[in-house]
Amino acid sequence: MNLLYEGKAKKIFGSPNDTELVMEFKDSLTAFNAQKKGSFKGKGEINHDIALLMFEYLKEKGVDSHFIKSESSTTMRVHRVKIIPFEVVVRNVMAGSLAKKLGRKEGERLPRALVEFYFKDDALGDPFMSEEQIMVLNMATNEELLELKRQALIVNGALIDLFKSVGINLVDFKLEFGRNLDGKIILADEISPDSCRLWDIKTNEKMDKDRFRQDLGEVDKFYAEILQRLREGLRA
Amino acid sequence: MNLLYEGKAKKIFGSPNDTELVMEFKDSLTAFNAQKKGSFKGKGEINHDIALLMFEYLKEKGVDSHFIKSESSTTMRVHRVKIIPFEVVVRNVMAGSLAKKLGRKEGERLPRALVEFYFKDDALGDPFMSEEQIMVLNMATNEELLELKRQALIVNGALIDLFKSVGINLVDFKLEFGRNLDGKIILADEISPDSCRLWDIKTNEKMDKDRFRQDLGEVDKFYAEILQRLREGLRA
Repeated sequence: MNLLYEGKAKKIFGSPNDTELVMEFKDSLTAFNAQKKGSFKGKGEINHDIALLMFEYLKEKGVDSHFIKSESSTTMRVHRVKIIPFEVVVRNVMAGSLAKKLGRKEGERLPRALVEFYFKDDALGDPFMSEEQIMVLNMATNEELLELKRQALIVNGALIDLFKSVGINLVDFKLEFGRNLDGKIILADEISPDSCRLWDIKTNEKMDKDRFRQDLGEVDKFYAEILQRLREGLRA
Repeated sequence: MNLLYEGKAKKIFGSPNDTELVMEFKDSLTAFNAQKKGSFKGKGEINHDIALLMFEYLKEKGVDSHFIKSESSTTMRVHRVKIIPFEVVVRNVMAGSLAKKLGRKEGERLPRALVEFYFKDDALGDPFMSEEQIMVLNMATNEELLELKRQALIVNGALIDLFKSVGINLVDFKLEFGRNLDGKIILADEISPDSCRLWDIKTNEKMDKDRFRQDLGEVDKFYAEILQRLREGLRA
């Protein structure tokens, strides 16, 4: 296969069919704009399996994504999309960069879901932008931003329910979207413990990439635990 | 007089009348959240005179402010207001922190005025916030943000005209607002070359605090030039 792009945690390959791509989940783990690097054996497989469950679950909830089918334990076939260059972050609980920038403690539940946009540019450190900035600078239209928010909030509602049913608090997460060949905006990239903050409802223990960012240990154990709980929850 | 507050470039004193305050313009000049410090003799007087012209000019244009009258060459009497803790920035041309965060060159004219909000908190470095963040976190209401934007855009239109008439390009500026005792939101703080980016229309030369930030020299000469041009322009 023809490697088109290698990112921090995934590789993208061309496929014989040029409307489709193959996405491979790597074992590597990075944080702080790749200044901190790590990996664990089996991580690619776990994230592949989690992303798979997520895309299938969201499809049932009416959210279209680039996912077509799994091709191997670490690869999935996806529709080729033109990625919209904004990370769409949805927050339910104060944490991460928002807590840091406002000097707040993590853990405060927000009165309603907060949607944020970060311009995808590693060299610039993925800067946070207001919708006003994005629109005035013609980096997206109001209609596009509304559509991204609409879909992000549907995903949020669906995932809050799913994670709650398996004893997990969905604190926040990052989505990416792309336009497919028909020009439709669909969910792309992945949803995994790399891109979500997930806290155990009973113990408040962190079960996501913050374990790696903050050197909390047992990253592999918690990623596997997320997958196992989701499997059990979705089977039920 | 009873000193209530000393800021980076101004002091605020109580007045015999407790609905009013006295604002004194200092000779000091700071940048980068006060990590860089300087001053020049007469700066307080120049900024007092410029702010005075601004407030009087804006009043004619229908913008109410805290300004009551000048009390001395460096002090003015103002209405007591409760400051709204957001710096309201209006940009007409790409420059400063926006250019830096997006890796753009300074100088690109924006298709329309961009209004931004920065949470006033020196310890946090006055973080940029989207309207969505401000509203979800209940730090201001949608109505307040709309009113701040409305007034900021009126100020922008009026100041673009004024500066243009004296050969100056109004690149961007920062405003602060407060609620007066009647609960009305009015313009507060100051408008001066400390809080505006002002470029000579013919030469593109910087005439504002960027001369100090970027060690361009002759800060005093350019501040005095701004005042002189405004005086001549407003007399005409």
